[in-house]
Amino acid sequence: MASPRNIARLATRLASRRTPVPSTSTLRAPIKAKTTMFVRNGSTLPPRSTRFAEATETHLNALKSISSSTLSTLDSTASADELKTYNDDWMNKYHGKSQIVVKPKTTEEVSQIMKYCYENDLAVVPQGGNTGLVGGSNPVHDEIILNLSNLNQIRSFDEVSGVLVADGGVILETADHYLAEKGFIFPLDLGAKGSCHIGGNVSTNAGGLRLLRYGSLHGTVLGLEVVLPDGTIWNGLSGLRKDNTGFDLKQLFIGSEGTIGIITAISILCPRRPSAMNVAVFSLDSYEAVQKVFAEAKGHLGEILSAFEFFDKQSYALVKKHQEENGGERKVFETEGDFYCLIETGGSNAEHDEAKLTGLLEHLMENEMVLDGVLAQDSTQFQSLWSLRELVPESAGKAGSVYKYDVSVPVGKMYGLVEKMRAKLREGGILEGDGQKDGPIRAVAGYGHMGDGNLHINIVANKYTDEVEKIIEPYIYEIVAENEGSISAEHGLGVMKAPYIGYSKNDTSIDLMKKVKTLFDPKGLLNPYKYIV
Amino acid sequence: MASPRNIARLATRLASRRTPVPSTSTLRAPIKAKTTMFVRNGSTLPPRSTRFAEATETHLNALKSISSSTLSTLDSTASADELKTYNDDWMNKYHGKSQIVVKPKTTEEVSQIMKYCYENDLAVVPQGGNTGLVGGSNPVHDEIILNLSNLNQIRSFDEVSGVLVADGGVILETADHYLAEKGFIFPLDLGAKGSCHIGGNVSTNAGGLRLLRYGSLHGTVLGLEVVLPDGTIWNGLSGLRKDNTGFDLKQLFIGSEGTIGIITAISILCPRRPSAMNVAVFSLDSYEAVQKVFAEAKGHLGEILSAFEFFDKQSYALVKKHQEENGGERKVFETEGDFYCLIETGGSNAEHDEAKLTGLLEHLMENEMVLDGVLAQDSTQFQSLWSLRELVPESAGKAGSVYKYDVSVPVGKMYGLVEKMRAKLREGGILEGDGQKDGPIRAVAGYGHMGDGNLHINIVANKYTDEVEKIIEPYIYEIVAENEGSISAEHGLGVMKAPYIGYSKNDTSIDLMKKVKTLFDPKGLLNPYKYIV
Repeated sequence: MASPRNIARLATRLASRRTPVPSTSTLRAPIKAKTTMFVRNGSTLPPRSTRFAEATETHLNALKSISSSTLSTLDSTASADELKTYNDDWMNKYHGKSQIVVKPKTTEEVSQIMKYCYENDLAVVPQGGNTGLVGGSNPVHDEIILNLSNLNQIRSFDEVSGVLVADGGVILETADHYLAEKGFIFPLDLGAKGSCHIGGNVSTNAGGLRLLRYGSLHGTVLGLEVVLPDGTIWNGLSGLRKDNTGFDLKQLFIGSEGTIGIITAISILCPRRPSAMNVAVFSLDSYEAVQKVFAEAKGHLGEILSAFEFFDKQSYALVKKHQEENGGERKVFETEGDFYCLIETGGSNAEHDEAKLTGLLEHLMENEMVLDGVLAQDSTQFQSLWSLRELVPESAGKAGSVYKYDVSVPVGKMYGLVEKMRAKLREGGILEGDGQKDGPIRAVAGYGHMGDGNLHINIVANKYTDEVEKIIEPYIYEIVAENEGSISAEHGLGVMKAPYIGYSKNDTSIDLMKKVKTLFDPKGLLNPYKYIV
Repeated sequence: MASPRNIARLATRLASRRTPVPSTSTLRAPIKAKTTMFVRNGSTLPPRSTRFAEATETHLNALKSISSSTLSTLDSTASADELKTYNDDWMNKYHGKSQIVVKPKTTEEVSQIMKYCYENDLAVVPQGGNTGLVGGSNPVHDEIILNLSNLNQIRSFDEVSGVLVADGGVILETADHYLAEKGFIFPLDLGAKGSCHIGGNVSTNAGGLRLLRYGSLHGTVLGLEVVLPDGTIWNGLSGLRKDNTGFDLKQLFIGSEGTIGIITAISILCPRRPSAMNVAVFSLDSYEAVQKVFAEAKGHLGEILSAFEFFDKQSYALVKKHQEENGGERKVFETEGDFYCLIETGGSNAEHDEAKLTGLLEHLMENEMVLDGVLAQDSTQFQSLWSLRELVPESAGKAGSVYKYDVSVPVGKMYGLVEKMRAKLREGGILEGDGQKDGPIRAVAGYGHMGDGNLHINIVANKYTDEVEKIIEPYIYEIVAENEGSISAEHGLGVMKAPYIGYSKNDTSIDLMKKVKTLFDPKGLLNPYKYIV
């Protein structure tokens, strides 16, 4: 749509333009469930522990007496198919075999359920929106599923302080819409916002698209209400921004993936909603160019920079192909590049923001730092430009079976990991297009949150095979470890990455984590077989 | 200096003006040590525990063989007077009786010292800049003092990511100066910056003046290196912004006040330094007016609002008196008020910031929301306006013996606490000026960080007496608890508030905290008699 010269015209036009602030409900391409992913080889899962009791009708009746919203194949109140929604993950990659799903409506019910399960040695998996990528919210075997979707009330909002208190089962988008009406924003945004729960977001320490601007949940969450494994309700639901009276216990639950307690409510500090938002996407000829633009964006945009995302040409090719297949193709760039980056601003004064952005655009052009660029002129274009980045995972899923990795390393080293991975696959003779005509690896796409040093690598195969997996893993974890990176930047450990924690954490850390787990959950009943094993 | 009409002129002049960005070293009035404070009644301190060994010359020699920088009265390498610097706090309120101070130069030395003390049942108090207000960094009895001032090297800084890695004993101002040269800022600022250590800041979860803008240390600290009570070095010194691989252990150490480990290095995310800064101070006629201005400031200034402080006329009277006594008096406001507020902005574009500030000033004037206002025109005025707020604690100290409280409650209820406290003292017949001609209470001053709901109450008495203390405590904690507030917003528990944690934390919390303490420090050797007791 725009050559570099076009940017100049766009920049000039900016002064007289007001970008409408799109409602967030229209900004994001929703995650489509059931894209094809590889199914983890069952043989690698840990065996069922004999420490846990097997659920009986007696147990079921007790749970039904606590919560009327209990479904089970044991008494045929649900079919096995109905329970699949809870047993399986959205990628159809993880498959539990639970016979009981309990959906409590109050914290008190959650407490009584846990008390009963604790006394009867029943293992439990807490489940939010079930939108995770590492099998963290599905049973590994027959754990009772404690689904929080009925615990979904907003409890209070204070317009002076911006503090929202809400049940853990509130859907992220619901919370954000509620806040939008009051001129505030939830300080977290991610693709799954239409399905994921805020309690699940906190228990997995979700990062997402605007961490660059609003920081991590460790900073924005002010308090939690948690049901501990033995059913004790821990009320740590403070709405105070400052409170130095003892260990900050809530921090332990943030990112604990439901292994030491079930988050039933959160208290979170919500900033004012930006009254002006802009988004621009650029094509560039190298990863070095992306880094330079990132530095310039930070300098020119300062406090209004709200997202800086990047994706490579392989990612963009997947998105274009997916759009073509859905009749939505259209030419975006006059000059395409090996790399692309997306810059979003959010501020309180449209005129000032546009002046800052114009300054950046002019600088990038004058110095020939980009090949081409497009700036959203209205909310439709805003959404359309964001979808170039946001459709990458879905497009990869449509193209084949995807090995997905989510890592963080220093920004300068991020793309080197993608190149090393390609070299490794090429060396193994399985990367399509390098002498190898027909797969098994069709594409290696790299994209992610540049501002956070968070890289996503999607390896698209024609099908899942042990041969391919052995070439990728643990090699990918090794190259992350060499760069002192994290093998899970934001998706967590769950069942998928639990065996690999040693690549990111030393023995002292793992030993302390095991002690913390035992301290809170001596019977190991909560979300077993995962996280720290 | 400026009537409301003056503000109009100032606002007009803003467009052609550039406020020089003052170097931070000149912004703050340094804390003056040894102001008169009340001395805590020794009888209320916990007795020495017989679990701990008494230090002998054998112990001393072993410690000297680990660290050559060891001072002791046992072998006369130091006089009792020399050890007072370490045994006493800066307010001369807490007085330890330690005979040994060890000042290790490396993490390895800290580790060996702790290993030795652990094996020999020697209690240890870690000490940073010794600038705290609750006796957290001084021995209660004869604990060995492990002072970190020799562990003071900056280890690395990455200009791409803004991640600073530095020893725990680096002085906050030193770190900030280092960052200033590179165009970055330490995301924490407080009055004691010239003396306090960044390791101490993290271990006490310091809040300070710009938490409103940069958030809490729980969000900005990326990693820690900690020596555990048994001498194990825990290397959690990650520089990654995102890392979801297990419990976020570092969070437990942030705000743990040296009770479960000694922070020997930190990794912290530092933002770009604002290239433009402004400060304005207003007089107002009521606390309600302050709250309204706060709401307007948030609306008009958005992302550039970096501090919003308030103080009452009693606080201002103390500062004026102190300035008069030091020959520094001058008339600031044409119209004084019952309340004052200070607004600071920090942004990346001076012109835009001034336009936003002008918009706010015009709005406040047109709607007669303030009585008077003053805007800094240069860095000297910037410092001078900040000192109106920052000199409050020092001025209170000069006026008498000060009972200091640091609490947080919802913003709307903050000043109600000060009024309740005055009513209580009046009722007790001890508040000067209410029929009571000559003390014992000379003033009750309220001030603090409005943006964080953090109120400081300074009660100035002619001297410390049990009678006065009994009227204040536990009443003040009771009224904080009634408002679901915190009895320590930012100063921590230390030895002063340890007995009162129950006013802010429930039994479940305290029970969990005790378990965490025992998990990390089973012998209870680290910073005993404090925090969680």
